[in-house]
Amino acid sequence: MGVAMRFSSDNAAAPHPAVLEAMANAARRDTAYDGDALSRSLDAIMSNLFERDVAALWVATGTAANALALAVLCPPYRGIVCHRDAHVQNDEAGAPEFYTHGAKLMLADGNAAKLTAADIAERLDEIADDVHRVQPAAISITNATEYGASYTAAEVAAIGDLARERRLRFHMDGARFANAVAHTGASVADLTWRAGVDVLSFGFVKNGGLGAEALVFFDTSLAAEARIRLKRAGHLLSKGRFLAAQIIALLGEDRWLDNARAANAGATLLGLAAGTRLIHAVEANEVFVRVTASEAASLRAQGFEFYDWGAGEARFVVSWDQPEDEIASLAAALGHV
Amino acid sequence: MGVAMRFSSDNAAAPHPAVLEAMANAARRDTAYDGDALSRSLDAIMSNLFERDVAALWVATGTAANALALAVLCPPYRGIVCHRDAHVQNDEAGAPEFYTHGAKLMLADGNAAKLTAADIAERLDEIADDVHRVQPAAISITNATEYGASYTAAEVAAIGDLARERRLRFHMDGARFANAVAHTGASVADLTWRAGVDVLSFGFVKNGGLGAEALVFFDTSLAAEARIRLKRAGHLLSKGRFLAAQIIALLGEDRWLDNARAANAGATLLGLAAGTRLIHAVEANEVFVRVTASEAASLRAQGFEFYDWGAGEARFVVSWDQPEDEIASLAAALGHV
Amino acid sequence: MGVAMRFSSDNAAAPHPAVLEAMANAARRDTAYDGDALSRSLDAIMSNLFERDVAALWVATGTAANALALAVLCPPYRGIVCHRDAHVQNDEAGAPEFYTHGAKLMLADGNAAKLTAADIAERLDEIADDVHRVQPAAISITNATEYGASYTAAEVAAIGDLARERRLRFHMDGARFANAVAHTGASVADLTWRAGVDVLSFGFVKNGGLGAEALVFFDTSLAAEARIRLKRAGHLLSKGRFLAAQIIALLGEDRWLDNARAANAGATLLGLAAGTRLIHAVEANEVFVRVTASEAASLRAQGFEFYDWGAGEARFVVSWDQPEDEIASLAAALGHV
Amino acid sequence: MGVAMRFSSDNAAAPHPAVLEAMANAARRDTAYDGDALSRSLDAIMSNLFERDVAALWVATGTAANALALAVLCPPYRGIVCHRDAHVQNDEAGAPEFYTHGAKLMLADGNAAKLTAADIAERLDEIADDVHRVQPAAISITNATEYGASYTAAEVAAIGDLARERRLRFHMDGARFANAVAHTGASVADLTWRAGVDVLSFGFVKNGGLGAEALVFFDTSLAAEARIRLKRAGHLLSKGRFLAAQIIALLGEDRWLDNARAANAGATLLGLAAGTRLIHAVEANEVFVRVTASEAASLRAQGFEFYDWGAGEARFVVSWDQPEDEIASLAAALGHV
Repeated sequence: MGVAMRFSSDNAAAPHPAVLEAMANAARRDTAYDGDALSRSLDAIMSNLFERDVAALWVATGTAANALALAVLCPPYRGIVCHRDAHVQNDEAGAPEFYTHGAKLMLADGNAAKLTAADIAERLDEIADDVHRVQPAAISITNATEYGASYTAAEVAAIGDLARERRLRFHMDGARFANAVAHTGASVADLTWRAGVDVLSFGFVKNGGLGAEALVFFDTSLAAEARIRLKRAGHLLSKGRFLAAQIIALLGEDRWLDNARAANAGATLLGLAAGTRLIHAVEANEVFVRVTASEAASLRAQGFEFYDWGAGEARFVVSWDQPEDEIASLAAALGHV
Repeated sequence: MGVAMRFSSDNAAAPHPAVLEAMANAARRDTAYDGDALSRSLDAIMSNLFERDVAALWVATGTAANALALAVLCPPYRGIVCHRDAHVQNDEAGAPEFYTHGAKLMLADGNAAKLTAADIAERLDEIADDVHRVQPAAISITNATEYGASYTAAEVAAIGDLARERRLRFHMDGARFANAVAHTGASVADLTWRAGVDVLSFGFVKNGGLGAEALVFFDTSLAAEARIRLKRAGHLLSKGRFLAAQIIALLGEDRWLDNARAANAGATLLGLAAGTRLIHAVEANEVFVRVTASEAASLRAQGFEFYDWGAGEARFVVSWDQPEDEIASLAAALGHV
Repeated sequence: MGVAMRFSSDNAAAPHPAVLEAMANAARRDTAYDGDALSRSLDAIMSNLFERDVAALWVATGTAANALALAVLCPPYRGIVCHRDAHVQNDEAGAPEFYTHGAKLMLADGNAAKLTAADIAERLDEIADDVHRVQPAAISITNATEYGASYTAAEVAAIGDLARERRLRFHMDGARFANAVAHTGASVADLTWRAGVDVLSFGFVKNGGLGAEALVFFDTSLAAEARIRLKRAGHLLSKGRFLAAQIIALLGEDRWLDNARAANAGATLLGLAAGTRLIHAVEANEVFVRVTASEAASLRAQGFEFYDWGAGEARFVVSWDQPEDEIASLAAALGHV
Repeated sequence: MGVAMRFSSDNAAAPHPAVLEAMANAARRDTAYDGDALSRSLDAIMSNLFERDVAALWVATGTAANALALAVLCPPYRGIVCHRDAHVQNDEAGAPEFYTHGAKLMLADGNAAKLTAADIAERLDEIADDVHRVQPAAISITNATEYGASYTAAEVAAIGDLARERRLRFHMDGARFANAVAHTGASVADLTWRAGVDVLSFGFVKNGGLGAEALVFFDTSLAAEARIRLKRAGHLLSKGRFLAAQIIALLGEDRWLDNARAANAGATLLGLAAGTRLIHAVEANEVFVRVTASEAASLRAQGFEFYDWGAGEARFVVSWDQPEDEIASLAAALGHV
């Protein structure tokens, strides 16, 4: 057997060469923390991209980005509605509870880890307005979702309307935001603030970054508190220019979109190969396939790495830098299992 | 006026070329989080350096390293004795309180931000053993201290003895541990676990790193909990190999010691130049000098960047990569103010 | 319409005369906090009742008792398996999250708010053993449950066995423990520590108390930490003798059992009257009945106070001091709706 | 030796007969939590007393009252300036840190545990306005102080002015507010909201109560959040009418003032007897006296209970119900030591 072909996670990808080059270029003596020119340029760069004034912070991980966002949106004694399968609920080791000081995640159901405004309204309506019950303060959705579904701008806006009606804040976990943008072709403004989103965790790590995400505040009044919480959480790196450099490199020349398109295209190929075994429509870079235990074993024997996702299901994730021959091999293999 | 000569912080330094090279070498597709070969080698490398079995974790910042260490050593309802001028008290935006869930920092006094066992015992003796009073659980010292003083192995061991007697855990903030080792010439084992230290925050960021510190557990039973807390704090970077690579690069060929020696030597020169204006003995890479406001203004007009440190005092920090001509210029300037 | 007939909650009851008398007897100058003779006698009294050495603390409310118990059983970064309809999840405003500093409640399903060992095992098996997932540390059950079901000693013991196997701690919320004891006739030892329970919230407020519950530690090593957390939560009343007095008065002459029997008997009558409308078997002092909206309105028009419990369901709770004529009237009314 | 004469704490007092009578009168079936008529009347009664609209909550302990007040005034990432000897810092087992989720107490110095506006300003000026430093959000003073000093209305107002200037919230720990009012003769309005106080912990436990304090919000917008936090902390007693009854009984017929005057008068007598041994002026019901170890032993041998307060100092507290002969005996004894 040759080298492993990793479809386990887009976290297994390499950083994009432009990211490494930008970091090398930042490798001089400079101002510490976020006082350098690169860090200070993030607001303007993101404002330009989002077509309005925004405030942006760099953060080393998506978990920290999400947890910081939720901490500024929800006090300790209230709750956040999210999908039962959301990353914030299942894959962050309780970071939202840690950063919010114990806010409660209020789990809702929906297809492919996606929530409709109606799903959320139903969950909200269950919560009696009573001092004995934790009351909701925010909604968090993931776009693209944990099952590779993307929201349209209209779907986000329907949730944004609900949030406004119920006086809730609205967070989007965009660890794979680039993939959602690439899939829908929507403008980043339409997918976020025009649809009522208050804060976006804008992911770059799965998109060619080395270790940098952006927190984008459409309600810019929230950014100062977030920066204090970021420092308090030990996330204000003293050489922040190396994080800013990554984000800027990926936004440059639309590399973030090219990377997302490449990953999405690979996933689409795999989805087609999976045929009727496909569990969720492929709207980003993740592919969920029904496989038996022996089929899974056979795939692994051929060198493919991937996660089992419940009984009889497998998850394959395509990275921005996934070798074409690995994708072709897996597509062929999926066609024959 | 030419380019700024930064003596404000060793955080302003560049990463060491070997660090950048090691990161570039890690820039391939690999296992995520801390499952890669570099991350998995840290325990063995640190065990070899410390002459005993230790467990080591990478962490992106010194603030996170300290706060994580304190969180595993002290429950929410107890306290940590540290110096009034300690970094954990003054410069971490309350990270220790955040990570420990509200443990109390119990401030003690001592010369040059250094605590003797007697200083600590005096502080401990003030705390009535009563359910109304927060009881201490741990001691934290900084080596080298915030005023550039280094502990001898014997001084640390005296505190370690006290900790054992009083059943307290013992943490060392070693953001400038390399400088202390270089200054004292003591072995790293003698300065830490042989002297009773339970956990060391072993700093690399101020020593040529880009964004990586090590948490070294001499009580290895603490490491598993620390790793959970690390993830929960959003500090488990998905591409952790890039942090491990930095630490390994700096430990290789004793670069960490060479870097510390270079910085210490520069500081010693400045200390000599400062003469009777010198406030604290120079035992690491920080120099505290009495200057009037007009002298400070004159130094700044000459291009030197530094922090005022209370009224009539200035702090100059020498980095591992501080240009020799900058040091010479500042020495000359200090000799003439 | 006459005076309200309150079946809304056993919290609406009056304190038992013996409770008031015991408090009046304690109304002299005495030692503060828990240093008085009454408070100091609790350990012995409870040890006698439970047929082994236990440690007991008074607490003013059931919410505080539960949250304190969970905080000593579960660290901030782990979780507690409980029923989806448990009081700790739904009716304590997030107190468990507050006291545990953000531990996650892991919701399981079971009939009548009761969990079997199998229900719990199924929930535990869903949790991948991974640093990204919050891991469980404890199980909490309510006895009698929120739907008036009581556990047999054997049912509790099956859960205790599971807890031991999975190395989890075991808490019982006994806000209506007296009702469960009265219903099952089991010994308090068999229902708790002999079945593997580590801590019991032993309720007295719904049982004739004014404002006092007991926290009973079968693992007596936990009590010291609980007492510190109790003080830290502002629950160490300076005149604690008035809480101890209540508990002692209710335990005296088996008043707690008599009160529970009276309440259970009333509930049984109502359950019989409800006939096929009854939703859950009556095994304590709560009765859940299917009623239409117009039937509910009619009952209210007759002076009965009760809670709607989801669509088409009503909850009636019988207190220890519920007037017999009120019970008879409600039974008659339920027979006719 | 006869019975102990307790001067250790006003917590050792008995409840006032009117308090017990009011509680007995409340001992009927009633609405749970704070929905009863007594609880609902607190706002109006306190508004009348304070000559403006206020919102008031009952709380079982002074520690909980203080910690709740601070939690609504200060976010987790900021700090509270208080005296180094304040009850919130020394005698509440870290309750402020628990309730605020880790806010930092920022200790200032001042005579007799009293802070002047200048003392506070000096402390505030030490805090660099920097993301690395915890920034202040609130000021907390104790009136009467832990050393029995009372603030005049003008002294409070000077601090209130400072708070407004620096945009800080202002809390008064009034565990012995009655004693301060009795001593100064000032109106309660002048001592609180007219002087800029946002929240008052209004103590009744040391004043003849059994277990009830009031939280009085002059910024009434804070009360709703405080009530949620109160429930979340397990402090929403289900039979809250028994707490409301106590407060109302003590406010009736100026009993709270009569009780405070009695206690203050006893303390004044003791202060006179202590003569030049007196350490702090007696402005409430506490008396601090210089005594040698052998003198302290001699006093204890005569049956007097009191606390040592540092080396060579003793604290005597006079309760509202302190027997006159005990006061006379202690005065005589102090005159002869």
